[in-house]
Amino acid sequence: MVDWQSALAEIQRGADEILLLDELVVKLKEGKPLKIKAGFDPTAPDLHLGHTVLINKLRTFQQLGHEVIFLIGDFTGMIGDPTGKNITRKPLTKEDVLANAETYKEQVFKILDPKLTTIRFNSEWMEQLGAAGMIKLAANQTVARMLERDDFKKRYANGQPIAIHEFLYPLVQGWDSVALKADIELGGTDQRFNLLMGRELQKSEGQRQQTVLMMPLLEGLDGVQKMSKSLGNYIGITDAPNDMFGKIMSISDDLMWRYYELLSFLPKELITQFKQDVADGKNPRDIKIDLAKELIARFHSSEQAEAAHQEFIQRFQKNAIPDEMPEFTLMLGSEGLAVANVLKEAGLVTSTSEAMRMIKQGAVKQDGEKVEDSRLVFNTAAEYVFQVGKRKFARVYLS
Amino acid sequence: MVDWQSALAEIQRGADEILLLDELVVKLKEGKPLKIKAGFDPTAPDLHLGHTVLINKLRTFQQLGHEVIFLIGDFTGMIGDPTGKNITRKPLTKEDVLANAETYKEQVFKILDPKLTTIRFNSEWMEQLGAAGMIKLAANQTVARMLERDDFKKRYANGQPIAIHEFLYPLVQGWDSVALKADIELGGTDQRFNLLMGRELQKSEGQRQQTVLMMPLLEGLDGVQKMSKSLGNYIGITDAPNDMFGKIMSISDDLMWRYYELLSFLPKELITQFKQDVADGKNPRDIKIDLAKELIARFHSSEQAEAAHQEFIQRFQKNAIPDEMPEFTLMLGSEGLAVANVLKEAGLVTSTSEAMRMIKQGAVKQDGEKVEDSRLVFNTAAEYVFQVGKRKFARVYLS
Repeated sequence: MVDWQSALAEIQRGADEILLLDELVVKLKEGKPLKIKAGFDPTAPDLHLGHTVLINKLRTFQQLGHEVIFLIGDFTGMIGDPTGKNITRKPLTKEDVLANAETYKEQVFKILDPKLTTIRFNSEWMEQLGAAGMIKLAANQTVARMLERDDFKKRYANGQPIAIHEFLYPLVQGWDSVALKADIELGGTDQRFNLLMGRELQKSEGQRQQTVLMMPLLEGLDGVQKMSKSLGNYIGITDAPNDMFGKIMSISDDLMWRYYELLSFLPKELITQFKQDVADGKNPRDIKIDLAKELIARFHSSEQAEAAHQEFIQRFQKNAIPDEMPEFTLMLGSEGLAVANVLKEAGLVTSTSEAMRMIKQGAVKQDGEKVEDSRLVFNTAAEYVFQVGKRKFARVYLS
Repeated sequence: MVDWQSALAEIQRGADEILLLDELVVKLKEGKPLKIKAGFDPTAPDLHLGHTVLINKLRTFQQLGHEVIFLIGDFTGMIGDPTGKNITRKPLTKEDVLANAETYKEQVFKILDPKLTTIRFNSEWMEQLGAAGMIKLAANQTVARMLERDDFKKRYANGQPIAIHEFLYPLVQGWDSVALKADIELGGTDQRFNLLMGRELQKSEGQRQQTVLMMPLLEGLDGVQKMSKSLGNYIGITDAPNDMFGKIMSISDDLMWRYYELLSFLPKELITQFKQDVADGKNPRDIKIDLAKELIARFHSSEQAEAAHQEFIQRFQKNAIPDEMPEFTLMLGSEGLAVANVLKEAGLVTSTSEAMRMIKQGAVKQDGEKVEDSRLVFNTAAEYVFQVGKRKFARVYLS
């Protein structure tokens, strides 16, 4: 094992909050393998990079010599939505759970070491608990305390119904920590309340309290909202290499640094060096390419990463528009200006009939899009880039 | 079976509220035996007349041909107080539960017909429910709805903690109605919320909803507060016959009519006749004696009731003070008035020395209490009844 200071630095990378840090230091100083718990939904998993932020941190713990427990919350999954209102949360069967677990494994073992990962299902201890155990568990918390949880507080204040079983779910999650005797639990910042429940229940059971490590929610491609499937701003870990490459190349430079921190396995020092390189004039696009290749290599292969890069270069060059080209300003008449006339005035063709012919051949592009209709007429003032064939470009200002 | 109108009249006697009355009429009209549920605490029972109000109503249902289910809530009793704060609610063992059930039987079978009474324990279905079943059950209700219950509302408003398992107990009670397919549930008016929970859960399980019949809480001997052991205003059903007799004779005439309504098995018509008799000049004391004898006969025997009556007469005559007796008004001097002088002035003795002698013999009473000190001196204005020997009385006004 590495010294605890180095371990702590690795653990803290990208972490949003650690409760309590001094407890974590005590645990790391012991120099023994710790039980690292992270809970996952048992519904069919289709992971995106947002999910991997947590899994990457589990990988860090594995590399530091600790035992990672990948906990699948099948107990509540097999209950489904007991109100029956949420039809997307149908009760899972034992077979569903096991099949989903296999799908999970396929995905997470691209990041985690299978040999160092323990997969557990919480039905193991929850089914033994019984109704009486559930009641005893519920006695650990008060209604007022539950209503302190952000989402409950808001819903209660707005008169939106909270079914009582929703109060039991944080207790189930907390009880999982007791059953596993977890030393550390990882979760998103949105899980804060539930993660702390584990600490409380462990305390009342006389166990050492788990340290809670909260990872931030990864921003999606837009750089603003959290990455989510429903918002469409995500990169799925099963996305095709070319899609992955294109999506990563589309993000802002700021977001690129964020992704480097939370998604790259490169050492922090190297990332700091990259930032220096950009400050010194290096094109950030090249650093983005490195990130894209690292991630594609992780979820597909190095060969596919390289292929995606080449494909990207091809496409980029094919569609490339030169930075400099002749510019023309043309006046729109009262009846507008036909595309053939525009091309002729801009010197891209020698006659309107050549223009018509080139359009019909599919050799004319307006702002990168093929012009399909040779009778196209422009009526509004605007700026366009026209291209005829491979190499003839002109920028046209219609006014 | 009697006609439904007569049955309804019997059922309604003394009832505080029936929900819903028209449903009850439908059920009675069917002319089939109904399942009548009443839940009882599994802790060591020591019943008083207050408890019997409900049991008497169960007896009515038995007499009308229905099936009475005496439900012992052992499931929660075996959990005890899961917070551990209420040390008087220690978890019961299965043996405790069975022993308590025997004690219950001894007591309630003085009222109910053992052959027509089914004793059930809710652990039977609650232990099968499991933690998952408990969660599903909890999904039936919302936090807001639970906080409408009077006691929860007050505690929440006052910032007093409500442990979450307290929200589960009404659901357990409601689930008992589902498990039993109860047609009618009896309870005190303080059980309204929990009784209605049975209706809701039965509805969501597609069962016909139970009718809820609420009996009032019986006032204690003071005629104001509800009868309770802790207030000391109770008549225990295992109280000795003489104690029972004395306690009943001590209640007000108003309370006597209340007890007749809720505790006597005499027909309503007869009680109406008793009221007429009193209006016509009959001494209500004699009607109170009848009530005392009815209740003692129920919980002991007719012979013991008669004996208690005789004992009461004896005691009463021994201590009887005549309604009319000579009256005297005596002036207190500046040094007060010695008891011997009072007795002489009131004509109860011929001399103060006879007074001293009679006091020493223990033959002098002041307001029914033996005068022990022959040197007693009165200093304050007041009214007293003095008695010398068996038959000599005088009322003395000292002023």
